[in-house]
Amino acid sequence: MTRKIIIDTDPGQDDAVAIFLALASSELDVQAIIAVAGNVPRSHTVENARRVLELAGRADIPLYAGAERPLQKTQTTAEHVHGPTGLDGIDMSWSPSMPVQEQSGVEYLIQSVRAAEPQDITLVMLGPLTDLAIALTLAPDIASRLREVVLMGGAWSELGNITPAAEFNIYADPQAADIVFNAGIPLVVLPLDVTHKCLGLPERLKALRDNGNRCSVAAADMLSYSERFDLDKYGWKGAPLHDPCTIAWLLQPEIFSGRSVHVGIETAGVLSTGMTVVDWWSVTGRAPNALFLTDADSDAFYTLLTTRLATLP
Amino acid sequence: MTRKIIIDTDPGQDDAVAIFLALASSELDVQAIIAVAGNVPRSHTVENARRVLELAGRADIPLYAGAERPLQKTQTTAEHVHGPTGLDGIDMSWSPSMPVQEQSGVEYLIQSVRAAEPQDITLVMLGPLTDLAIALTLAPDIASRLREVVLMGGAWSELGNITPAAEFNIYADPQAADIVFNAGIPLVVLPLDVTHKCLGLPERLKALRDNGNRCSVAAADMLSYSERFDLDKYGWKGAPLHDPCTIAWLLQPEIFSGRSVHVGIETAGVLSTGMTVVDWWSVTGRAPNALFLTDADSDAFYTLLTTRLATLP
Amino acid sequence: MTRKIIIDTDPGQDDAVAIFLALASSELDVQAIIAVAGNVPRSHTVENARRVLELAGRADIPLYAGAERPLQKTQTTAEHVHGPTGLDGIDMSWSPSMPVQEQSGVEYLIQSVRAAEPQDITLVMLGPLTDLAIALTLAPDIASRLREVVLMGGAWSELGNITPAAEFNIYADPQAADIVFNAGIPLVVLPLDVTHKCLGLPERLKALRDNGNRCSVAAADMLSYSERFDLDKYGWKGAPLHDPCTIAWLLQPEIFSGRSVHVGIETAGVLSTGMTVVDWWSVTGRAPNALFLTDADSDAFYTLLTTRLATLP
Amino acid sequence: MTRKIIIDTDPGQDDAVAIFLALASSELDVQAIIAVAGNVPRSHTVENARRVLELAGRADIPLYAGAERPLQKTQTTAEHVHGPTGLDGIDMSWSPSMPVQEQSGVEYLIQSVRAAEPQDITLVMLGPLTDLAIALTLAPDIASRLREVVLMGGAWSELGNITPAAEFNIYADPQAADIVFNAGIPLVVLPLDVTHKCLGLPERLKALRDNGNRCSVAAADMLSYSERFDLDKYGWKGAPLHDPCTIAWLLQPEIFSGRSVHVGIETAGVLSTGMTVVDWWSVTGRAPNALFLTDADSDAFYTLLTTRLATLP
Repeated sequence: MTRKIIIDTDPGQDDAVAIFLALASSELDVQAIIAVAGNVPRSHTVENARRVLELAGRADIPLYAGAERPLQKTQTTAEHVHGPTGLDGIDMSWSPSMPVQEQSGVEYLIQSVRAAEPQDITLVMLGPLTDLAIALTLAPDIASRLREVVLMGGAWSELGNITPAAEFNIYADPQAADIVFNAGIPLVVLPLDVTHKCLGLPERLKALRDNGNRCSVAAADMLSYSERFDLDKYGWKGAPLHDPCTIAWLLQPEIFSGRSVHVGIETAGVLSTGMTVVDWWSVTGRAPNALFLTDADSDAFYTLLTTRLATLP
Repeated sequence: MTRKIIIDTDPGQDDAVAIFLALASSELDVQAIIAVAGNVPRSHTVENARRVLELAGRADIPLYAGAERPLQKTQTTAEHVHGPTGLDGIDMSWSPSMPVQEQSGVEYLIQSVRAAEPQDITLVMLGPLTDLAIALTLAPDIASRLREVVLMGGAWSELGNITPAAEFNIYADPQAADIVFNAGIPLVVLPLDVTHKCLGLPERLKALRDNGNRCSVAAADMLSYSERFDLDKYGWKGAPLHDPCTIAWLLQPEIFSGRSVHVGIETAGVLSTGMTVVDWWSVTGRAPNALFLTDADSDAFYTLLTTRLATLP
Repeated sequence: MTRKIIIDTDPGQDDAVAIFLALASSELDVQAIIAVAGNVPRSHTVENARRVLELAGRADIPLYAGAERPLQKTQTTAEHVHGPTGLDGIDMSWSPSMPVQEQSGVEYLIQSVRAAEPQDITLVMLGPLTDLAIALTLAPDIASRLREVVLMGGAWSELGNITPAAEFNIYADPQAADIVFNAGIPLVVLPLDVTHKCLGLPERLKALRDNGNRCSVAAADMLSYSERFDLDKYGWKGAPLHDPCTIAWLLQPEIFSGRSVHVGIETAGVLSTGMTVVDWWSVTGRAPNALFLTDADSDAFYTLLTTRLATLP
Repeated sequence: MTRKIIIDTDPGQDDAVAIFLALASSELDVQAIIAVAGNVPRSHTVENARRVLELAGRADIPLYAGAERPLQKTQTTAEHVHGPTGLDGIDMSWSPSMPVQEQSGVEYLIQSVRAAEPQDITLVMLGPLTDLAIALTLAPDIASRLREVVLMGGAWSELGNITPAAEFNIYADPQAADIVFNAGIPLVVLPLDVTHKCLGLPERLKALRDNGNRCSVAAADMLSYSERFDLDKYGWKGAPLHDPCTIAWLLQPEIFSGRSVHVGIETAGVLSTGMTVVDWWSVTGRAPNALFLTDADSDAFYTLLTTRLATLP
């Protein structure tokens, strides 16, 4: 049985690798991609999503444009990590040709979830949670029709990357995150606690490149570019790899471990806005609303990634 | 020359009277109605909008459903003012038959503003500002394409009605209001300062009813119902009349006076969330973003209202 | 029967006039003055309090130094209104010689209230509420031993002066104000709503100066200086007179009118921190904690002020 | 050379052990103890401080009463950890007889720091930071006269104990903590990250009890009581030991390691108020304001503690 997924994403090199991993996995049936503003402005993420789909030979997958900015917050982007295009590290001299759908990504999301059987669609969120938050505001009924939302975002013991307390995807639209975490949808969260354990060590990126196929080489090139910032910041031998963890969890959840906990979103703090407040020790009495993962078998994760990407063009 | 308007509304008795006034005025060309959650849940506001259009004999006007809830805030409604249906005071025993469009109100708003000439569309907002805020998040380009947004909301010297500091429409979705007031669109604001000067005194409601036509009688019946709450609260001889002031301003702006000022929205206060913070004395140095009206010739306003509603069925 | 008062003050021209009025009134027995940071830094307010007492020939009244800064907030002062010394407008070329007590004003306040009979001491607060807030933190038992706290601060329908939503004394230390307004002490509040009705029209200041005695002339000179800012800002014929209203209320409460209401202090707002949130229409269900005055017979007020100041040196 | 210290404390079993350790160490000259509200109400902490000093035979050390409540926050206490008296676990059937000074602890603190040579006094804070915050408000000049403030409080990667984001001492008075962390004083912070590594394992408590002297047995009895809560909560073999880490750092700083970083206090969050926001990776550009310790040689720590306490009565 394949699982139907919609991927909402802001590519971003690690988003691209996550999309590759999904497309390389027969267990998953990618219904559509929605490209939202996040790591870079939406004009770039839409263009990048087209490139990624064309590199993978999957221009047949419908691509929609999501929100152009976060709800209430001033827009924050991360070109200091991802480069000016968001996909720096690969050849960007060619122009993608596949179309973008006219309907907005949010309208598509609402209608496709309503049209599908209940619990048929899994939503994978790789960027700020703006689109899903808007869909839940316009159509709260979709909350109970989604099978699950699997998202990369937040942090607990590793705390933030964009601020001392906040991880980028949540920080970029904390109001949206608050809406999503309060919606009553089954959530699976892949935070920095996990992704900081999945380091792109040189031998791992080399193995990926050694696959030799177009998509594996592109993945290795992109990750070699984007890791520069983190290697400098943390002084580690490899950089955290974020978004592909979501797809890996869908494929092999046994790679990851964590706890069902309550996760709140701080939206009013002076210093901590965008923080995922994780009630790990159950001191608040609030019922769990997310499976919050904190550990990973990083060798198994990179083996999965490398093996699967080898099957792409 | 007629002015093209889209009305986003949460009827509500005073919304209904505002819609009647617009439909009765040949200066205005009502392109569509969007019914949003506000005074009562969206299921009621959609139903009520259908009733209002049918009472006015205008089932030809396209009706869309807007947001079902505010963005981040827990939903607040006002049945204590408007009654359980939102239109209490008139005969509700019949069922409206006109259709509701399939497309979401937000998607319609974005596409119609993009399709129209720049500065062609005026948006009249009579409820929480959720729909416009979402449209501006998905499509910020519409900000510069709208001619003007005329809204009922906020308060300055009269301060709040739903809390000591906040007026209902802004309080019901303060995040949305913050987005709208920061969007750079020309705003005209009809706050409680104005509407508390347009009291529905007994002789004014009588004059309306004495018109004798269906819509005038319905308007008088509705306002007689909804004023009960305010008469009791304020101990005045008539209740404030809110939403029709927006349409009256479009028709006869000389009825109203105010000042171009900066208006900010408090979204983080413990006691004052949803407040319109009006820089009346220019102490902040922030550039004006709204024409904020504070006074009205209430006799002229009621004369306009009564005269126009007489022309409806 | 005289009433024992302690005055906590940040002179400031209007503070000086308030102290004069208290010293000129046999109904009041001024136990001590505490000079706190506020309109100008504490080094100035202490010096100014010495000057005021010496001008009035009352160097026998013990003078204490209060807090040097607000609790949590960055210090805000108002030299743009009061001039660099806080008492600009009179001859400042001489040096006061009376002593300042070694004990801190807060320690004095706690010990004197504890030493007095219950309900014997009335506290008059003319500046930020820092000292009282600290005393209530160190010694909450004094709350029930104070007869009353009469304070100048806050605003309702006239809203703020230092920001669009906040009056200076409350804004200067909102955490302190929050502590005081939640302490359960009987509070009498003289806000901008009152003081903006007690305008220092030219004929009123002339009458004061025409008294001819040293203190009356000094009062007229000081008010002529400090009003310049407000005349320019509001375009009125006279400037609001603030602090003396508290003493006038103690002498002739019938000059003022208002309502017993709940007043909360906004301490978390982005735009409205320091606002007195006044539940005028009883929409919150919170029990009244203050007599909040909003109107005054300004002629009676100036007659009282002028008559009394004539009795000073 | 001995180091002069003033200990501000809210005993609390671990406070008692910290006081014992200080009194047992000839390197430290304890000038005074100030007992503040914290783990239990001030009436208890004052009483407990008297007991601790008498158990150690040091009724000669002056004891002052600090603040009776936190500044702005509603008071939170921790009887669920410390028992109703705060010193549960030892014989409480006797009454201490040593006096409490009349002067307030805050007044003493200000005057003693001013009277001492600059950089002569080290302040050890074992509870909420209320007293120091008030002293800094009344007398900001003491900031540059203190040698150092060594405090137990806060959390980084281990995050909170009283809420998911906040440690008890900071949470109990976040406004005070904000004042202290912004005061420009050299700060040494012993957070949960350290104290959660100094577990009171059974063999460690046994070694302490085996000393056989009165104070060691009392310390072991108290820690056996207070650890019950944490053993149950965390499921570890020993409970964190908090306050004595501050004294241990003064005696043998080489036991601990950490980083000089900027630490901000969240005072406005909905979910994270009282959090110490630690800029471990220097992403904010704010200059370091604290030596924030995160690791400890727990064997060395317990050896120091056990050896020293053996020298007491």
